[in-house]
Amino acid sequence: MSQILIQSVLLDDERVDILIQENIFQKIAKEKTLSVSDPNSVIIDGSHFAIVPAFYNTHTHAAMTFCRGLSDDVPLKIWLEKYIWPREASLTPEDVYIASRYAILEMIRSGTVFFADMYWFRTETALAARELGIRASIGVTFADLLKKDFEENCQFVEENLADYSGRVQLAIAPHAIYTNSAETLKRCAEISERFLLPYHIHVAETEHEERGSVTPTQGLSPVEFLDSLGVLSERTVAAHLVHVSEKDLQILAKRKATCAHNPCSNMKLSSGTFQMKRFLEHGIRVALGTDGAASNNNLDMREEMKFASLLAKMTSGDPTVLSATDTLKMATRNGAEAFGLNAGVIAEGKLADALLLNLGEPCFATGDVVSNWVYAANSSVIDTVICDGKLLMRHREISDSEEIERDFRNRFSSRS
Amino acid sequence: MSQILIQSVLLDDERVDILIQENIFQKIAKEKTLSVSDPNSVIIDGSHFAIVPAFYNTHTHAAMTFCRGLSDDVPLKIWLEKYIWPREASLTPEDVYIASRYAILEMIRSGTVFFADMYWFRTETALAARELGIRASIGVTFADLLKKDFEENCQFVEENLADYSGRVQLAIAPHAIYTNSAETLKRCAEISERFLLPYHIHVAETEHEERGSVTPTQGLSPVEFLDSLGVLSERTVAAHLVHVSEKDLQILAKRKATCAHNPCSNMKLSSGTFQMKRFLEHGIRVALGTDGAASNNNLDMREEMKFASLLAKMTSGDPTVLSATDTLKMATRNGAEAFGLNAGVIAEGKLADALLLNLGEPCFATGDVVSNWVYAANSSVIDTVICDGKLLMRHREISDSEEIERDFRNRFSSRS
Repeated sequence: MSQILIQSVLLDDERVDILIQENIFQKIAKEKTLSVSDPNSVIIDGSHFAIVPAFYNTHTHAAMTFCRGLSDDVPLKIWLEKYIWPREASLTPEDVYIASRYAILEMIRSGTVFFADMYWFRTETALAARELGIRASIGVTFADLLKKDFEENCQFVEENLADYSGRVQLAIAPHAIYTNSAETLKRCAEISERFLLPYHIHVAETEHEERGSVTPTQGLSPVEFLDSLGVLSERTVAAHLVHVSEKDLQILAKRKATCAHNPCSNMKLSSGTFQMKRFLEHGIRVALGTDGAASNNNLDMREEMKFASLLAKMTSGDPTVLSATDTLKMATRNGAEAFGLNAGVIAEGKLADALLLNLGEPCFATGDVVSNWVYAANSSVIDTVICDGKLLMRHREISDSEEIERDFRNRFSSRS
Repeated sequence: MSQILIQSVLLDDERVDILIQENIFQKIAKEKTLSVSDPNSVIIDGSHFAIVPAFYNTHTHAAMTFCRGLSDDVPLKIWLEKYIWPREASLTPEDVYIASRYAILEMIRSGTVFFADMYWFRTETALAARELGIRASIGVTFADLLKKDFEENCQFVEENLADYSGRVQLAIAPHAIYTNSAETLKRCAEISERFLLPYHIHVAETEHEERGSVTPTQGLSPVEFLDSLGVLSERTVAAHLVHVSEKDLQILAKRKATCAHNPCSNMKLSSGTFQMKRFLEHGIRVALGTDGAASNNNLDMREEMKFASLLAKMTSGDPTVLSATDTLKMATRNGAEAFGLNAGVIAEGKLADALLLNLGEPCFATGDVVSNWVYAANSSVIDTVICDGKLLMRHREISDSEEIERDFRNRFSSRS
């Protein structure tokens, strides 16, 4: 039986002992009250640390680390057509495996234990996630305009569902309304419904996305169009939602869809101004994502939290919107819940995912830990990352990191 | 004679040797061509590093680190009246010394070699800067409404000018139009003119600031009002400038004033939406600042760069605005120039201020170094900080840091 005991760690404003058994927070009690039975248990002195939920990154394209920093500060059309698509055209499965491993290393270092991916060569990304111990929702990407593989995708889901029932799961990921017909969008919803899988899709990232829709939307907005097809539900994770009307928000609330908000990517690509306060007023669940490293340019959810909070305050003109606590919840619990994980909170019975933050770091000398984590820290204050009851990082060390970095540089780096 | 030789370091896209003599970049040449004469010289193997200009933080209140994380997510009025002012009321000179040293430690760790300060107990902040080797422009703060010490301030400037002629200099810092009479604002400009000192002032941080002006502005905007008093010049560093009209921008351009832009603080306090593209179109020099740690909540200029660039792209709807290179220039050269420093560029004859970035860090594996520095890194990738030809940080170690942190925690931390 695998056990981890974290002693005298700061949880909210209290010092507690936390016992992790297998992959669950088994017991949380007053400090210096818990002990372990198994002599092989790991005991962590938590007295220099605060424990906080780990991050759940609800929208990314992990393998795109391979094109980080290669094409910045250009319009979206040029970015895609001149830089991204030509590179992707020659991408091999091994490239995706190597780049995904590298991306996961960056995620773990910056405190992420789960990512919702949407890309090509899904089995290679899944393999990387399995090997490195992180959780993932691997999107089975449907894109009529790019790849005509609807039946193959469906077959893949049916045949592999059992293999994707643990830490690494599947999602149905129709890319967008501008790459899929109404028929495909609907059939994807049927598969999502049948196998109870998330329905992960880009929606309203840019203005007037409906004009490029494969099936004409007859004047409906992207959200209205998707609702008219009957595909929106509590399984929907709609990435971006930058351009939404009051009616769109009502629909999203009614269908209990989740918004995966990507502030850095939206700002960097000038996609538009996300209206956080209106989402909150409608009671829509908002989670956070980094998008791919080519449009951010990192996978750092701590930075994403600060951007989300400050952007929400600026856009609404209201500094009380999205407090540090609410922001942290968005980056953790909301993301976990959107993907059906009983996680994102440090509480008995929840999946044992967590970060230990080094309180010896200067940014924690005064004030509230959560405020300092969201507004003042950077991800280098993370000492330990726990995912599914396993230590993925300890004192900032991760197994095999040198090999993973070497493989990535050998494959993709042009610098001597 | 003090010499530092940095060998085979990456400068832009080239490997070079750089010789620093006293406080100047003496010689920059092809790699493996330079040597040192003095056996006491420091030789740095630069082969794992890129050298970039260090940061010049053009607007902050260093000592406010003491109220970091104590009062977030509240409206400005409550923030000031309930949290900040009561704490400041009981502040001692020793508090400011201790908190300033701590702030400077954070600045050095995150790559800043200069800060323009505006606060109380200026001699304590100046002492901290002198001791820790950083550059500073110490604002002599004028605020009629808060302290009636105009003559004392003037006397201080006259008597101490000689002591403030090196790394640590003085600025005339009338706080704002809502704390100073027109008479004070004008007399401050006379002193600034007479002693050739910067004129550092908060301008148009919030909407309709003119309504609170001590001397009624007769319908003029804050910028128009200041111009009507004849106080704007190339010595002006106007912090914030969030609310400006087309006419204001024309005035600022004509007077060659510098804008100290503080994106994190403006966003966090919901002050408004800074219009970067319009400043650039008018050819106004924009530099960056972090503002105080109570409204940011850190002093990290790398993070400030990413916020500035992404905010500019979002606000303008133009992803080509404020490229990575332009953003870095804003955070370095523009700030140095605004305060009359022959610095901010790695070039022969310039003051020897620089950072060595660790190219072994994962974010530098692909793509452009400057892009990765602005968009993907965090400040923990800085290995070495050089200011005025001295090594302030080497392999992330800074002299006396433990003592400085201990003093700060003993004084201000409530956590056991």
